[in-house]
This record gives sequence, C-alpha cells and structure tokens, in this order.
Amino acid sequence: MRAAFFEGNQTFRVGPCVPVPAGPGQVQIRVQFCGICGTDLHLFHGAMANRLTLPHVMGHEMSGVIAAVGAGVTQYQPGDRVTVRPLDPCGQCPACQAGHSHICHSLKFIGIDTPGALQGLWTVPAHTLHRLPESLSLRQGAMVEPIAVACHDVRMGEVRAAENCVVIGGGPIGVLIALVAQARGAHVLMAEVNPFRVQLARQLGIDAVNPKETDLVALVNQHTGGAGADVVFEVSGSRAGSEMMTRLPRTRGRIVVVAIYAEPAQVDLFRFFWRELKLSGARVYEPEDFEMAIQLAASGSLPLEKLITNVVPLDRLEAGMRQMEGGGEVMKILVSCGD
Amino acid sequence: MRAAFFEGNQTFRVGPCVPVPAGPGQVQIRVQFCGICGTDLHLFHGAMANRLTLPHVMGHEMSGVIAAVGAGVTQYQPGDRVTVRPLDPCGQCPACQAGHSHICHSLKFIGIDTPGALQGLWTVPAHTLHRLPESLSLRQGAMVEPIAVACHDVRMGEVRAAENCVVIGGGPIGVLIALVAQARGAHVLMAEVNPFRVQLARQLGIDAVNPKETDLVALVNQHTGGAGADVVFEVSGSRAGSEMMTRLPRTRGRIVVVAIYAEPAQVDLFRFFWRELKLSGARVYEPEDFEMAIQLAASGSLPLEKLITNVVPLDRLEAGMRQMEGGGEVMKILVSCGD
Repeated sequence: MRAAFFEGNQTFRVGPCVPVPAGPGQVQIRVQFCGICGTDLHLFHGAMANRLTLPHVMGHEMSGVIAAVGAGVTQYQPGDRVTVRPLDPCGQCPACQAGHSHICHSLKFIGIDTPGALQGLWTVPAHTLHRLPESLSLRQGAMVEPIAVACHDVRMGEVRAAENCVVIGGGPIGVLIALVAQARGAHVLMAEVNPFRVQLARQLGIDAVNPKETDLVALVNQHTGGAGADVVFEVSGSRAGSEMMTRLPRTRGRIVVVAIYAEPAQVDLFRFFWRELKLSGARVYEPEDFEMAIQLAASGSLPLEKLITNVVPLDRLEAGMRQMEGGGEVMKILVSCGD
Repeated sequence: MRAAFFEGNQTFRVGPCVPVPAGPGQVQIRVQFCGICGTDLHLFHGAMANRLTLPHVMGHEMSGVIAAVGAGVTQYQPGDRVTVRPLDPCGQCPACQAGHSHICHSLKFIGIDTPGALQGLWTVPAHTLHRLPESLSLRQGAMVEPIAVACHDVRMGEVRAAENCVVIGGGPIGVLIALVAQARGAHVLMAEVNPFRVQLARQLGIDAVNPKETDLVALVNQHTGGAGADVVFEVSGSRAGSEMMTRLPRTRGRIVVVAIYAEPAQVDLFRFFWRELKLSGARVYEPEDFEMAIQLAASGSLPLEKLITNVVPLDRLEAGMRQMEGGGEVMKILVSCGD
C-alpha cells in the first residue's frame, strides 16, 4: 500500500508504506476518499511545523471501510463503512473533566499530531469512528468531517428558524455553514470576494454577494428592517472580515468566529458595548455534530456533489494543493486513496 | 435653586437655575446626592461634545425626594424617596421592539443627551423612577445606579455560585462587580494597578492583586487547578486589560467587556477558537437590575460607606473632577445637591 509523505518544503513523495496493524482498541481502515482541508494547505505552506514529524502523512476528512479490528474492539467489524472524528483527547485535563474533550488542553489532532488518512490503510482508535449509512456514498462520506465543522458552528451560533444569518467567507466551510443554517430554516446571506465562489454559492441556492461591489451593511439593514443580523459567522480570517463582523449584528446579535487568526486582530469592542453583542469561538466538533452531519449528508438535502470540484489520485495531491493555493475555480478537492 | 453648568473647556459655573415644572407624565425631584461617574469625567475632558448642548448640566447617579408630579402621574406623589434609571428610549426602533429598550438605537441618556441631576430640582419622565426603601439612606441611594451597572454586568456574565471570576480594573464599577459577584456566591480575584484601590478593595473583602507585581495568569491557574477562570470582567479599558482578558478564562469561559473602548483593540481571536471562549458586551441596565441593586443596597450587605471616599458641595464639583483625574486616593465622590 502507498502513502503521500509530506517532506517539508512544499513537497510530497508518494511511495510504499508499511501498514500499521490494529492494536488493542484500534481499527485499521481501507481509506477510500480523503478531502484536502485548508489546514492541510497551511501545513503544506510550513504552518505548525513544530507539531509535525517528517515525513508526515496528512489528511483527516475521509471515508473508508474497516479492514481489521484490534483486540477489545467489539462494536465494529471488517467491512463496516465509517468516517473518523480525528480527535484524541487526554481525558485527564480540566477541559476533558468538564466535558469539553474536543477542546482538551492536550488534544492530539489525528492527521497533524499523528499520521493522517492520505494513505491506503490507516489505523486509528476505535473511539473516533462514526458509521456511514448505506444510503451515503463513500465519496460524499468524505464530506462528513467538514459538514460536522459547520454543524458545530451553527450550533454554537444557536441559529433558529427564520433568523437572519450572514456568512463572511465562501470557502468550503463557509458554504457548508450557509447550507446547514438554511437546513435549520434560517435566511442566509453570504459575502465572498472570489467571483467563482459567489457563482457556485448561488448555484447551491445561497444568496451570495461580493462585498467589494455591494454595501453589505446597507443590504443587511434593508433585509432586516434596520435591525441587523441575528448571527454573523466570520469565516474569512481577513482583516476586512474581522472589521465587518461587528457592524452587521442586531442588538444582542451573535458573532461566531470560525476562522483561525494567527495574529491578534483589531476588534471594535465599542460595538460590543453599544449593541450588547456576543461573540463565540468555535473549534472542531463534538460527537453530536458528526451524527448531525451524517444525518444531513445521508438525507440528500445538501448539494454535496456540486461542492466536490475535483477528485484526484494520490499522486496528484501536490497538484491539488497548488490548485487550492491559486484560489481560482476550486471548492473541495477529494483524493482517491483506494486506487 | 442652583445648578452646576458645564461650559466646556473643563469649566463649571455654579449659579442660579430656573426649575423646570413637571409636565404631563413627569416628576420634579429635589436632588439630595449625585455621584460623579467616570462618564462625567470623560464629558469634562471633552468627550461626546457633539451630544451636549452647552451650558450642560451633568449627573445621573442620584437620590432625592419628589417635589411635584405632573398630570397623569398616579404612581408617585410628593415626598416619595426615589432614584432615576436615566434612560429614555424611543419605543419604536428594532431594539425597543425586540425588548432591548436599554440599548435603543436612538437612546437618550438623561444627563448626557438631556439635563442631568447636578442641580437642586430635576425634572424627568416618571417611567424612569425607582422607589428607595426607608431602610436605605439617600446617601447610599445615590449608589444604586452604579450598583445596577454591576448587577447588569454580573447577570450578562451569567455568574453562578462557586464560580471563579476575575475583575480587571478596580475602580467603582469594578469593585461593585466584584461585590455583586461575591453576593452571588462567586469567588472573585481583582486585578488593579493603583495601590490605593488595591488596599481599599482588600478592606472591602475582595481578593485583590497588582498585575504588575503578580503573575495573574499563573495565579488564576493555581486557584482553578489549571482550568482557568469561569468569567472575566474587563473593566479597565486598557491595552493590558484587553490582552489579559483572553488569557484567563477556562475552556468555554465567558468574558464580559464592561469598559468603553474609544478605539478598536487588538484582540486575540485565536484564543476564542482555541478555548471556545465567549465574549459579551454589556451596556447600562434594565429595570430588573435596578430592583436588584436597590435590594442589595438596602440589605446592608454591601460596604457602600467605604466606597464613598468624599462628599462635596455643588461648588466643589470641579475640584472633585480634578481629584478623580488625578487617580489617587479616591473611589466614589458624591455631590451634595440639596444644600
């Protein structure tokens, strides 16, 4: 079997790899598809280098079929179709003890801190598994992880039916947040500067505008009778986004910061006072978000096939990264690992 | 009767003033005491000049006795002891319609947008009144407004018994937040750089430290078994405060921004993601906060007399402002308006 080894310096080497046998409490999965996450692109560009042991196998948005189970694993058996919630918490720290193990103080993110899914056979703890129903293709099953991110973000934003939401940033996570919020019955407006993504969002049934062409504050006020948005999701990670996020919400409106800001940002704290705004950070997901994501994906109500703009073989992973960094006509790229 | 007229350029003129009769729905109050708020000091320094009509009468932390009632006022009569919730909302805007009239889009703050209480007779809408019980002195009754601010902040922070709170900034509002949180059964640590205020806070029964001398992050982690604080109140309005506020909370901990930031601040949004922090802005108060403040003040459980460091006559208002701006051995200054 083969793996894609990241060797640093924006280079992958695809070559043979010795499978890791499933130890006690583990399962070995034959990986079918693995999506390329924005985080993988950051790793490719040299981010979080101190967390990687080179050569490193990335990948954590996957689907596959169990090949073998280790000792003590009774809930799963070979042939089961699964995806992985790639979190390995310590179980001991104050966050784990408080029931927030997804934000464990010593969280290991599988695919960053330990080897990931961009290989033919992947061995992970059985506690990370979620079953994929037969009605969900493995191709779409690889979308469950990013959908779970969106489910978590929408849940943290406490989005209710008929509320007005704005999503700043229309990449894969922004689009999925919009779709999940719409599935909850919310009205969504998306702001995105990439014309391809604006068009794609519209094809997916999302009301999307380019904030460089449209006065977003005026539009939101017009949509809401001057009140402002109920919930704003800041997914862009841009300076324009962190400035805009405080200008859009209604009194006591909510802001969910989804983007990962490497540096402190200028934030208008006066606006928090003036309108009693609330801001929440949101990180990855909890088991219920995965279950909700699987249910939504399996329902067929999300236009997932339109989000998958490319499927490439493992050998083309580096080319996929290059396409993503170009930022052009791309949304989600899947890597076929089972060839 | 006399009033203190702010004439701009850090100057007050104390002189005769024609009382405004109580019109329909209004009451005329004989003002007994009026505290000097930090906001009054900002006005004195030239802030919000566009909202003032000079000469302007400031003041909104007051107690007094009703002198006359206007047509249609049936709930109050001359002789009633009262304080004023100095908010005059429009009743029509989306915020008012949503039940958030204290953050009305066109809120008139009485004492800024209209004349305030630093005069012998003050006429206000009857809907702004709260009764003071006989057991509460008028001197302490003038503290109800800032106590209501603290009650609102603690309520917005959802402080529960036995939770660990940190208050950054030990001026009058910070001290009152600490006392109200303690009255709810919380453990409070206060950070304050002014040695006089640190000492005074300790005399009031608050665990206070100087963050220039003590490693606040280490201390909070030590107090909480490494978890971090449940709630952090940022009351300092300082750069150090807005940097510190994100370093102290536990996973899913809450930050309440009480200070008014004139300029956007550098905020560590990464930390919001990393620990799923929540931040709320808090502005003034709602009627229930005033009722809670009156109940707390009347209970005698708050050491209010120790907070009142000076009582000065109306003629000494400007000197009081000078003392406050010096920042030395001063906490709350009351102005005696009934002389």
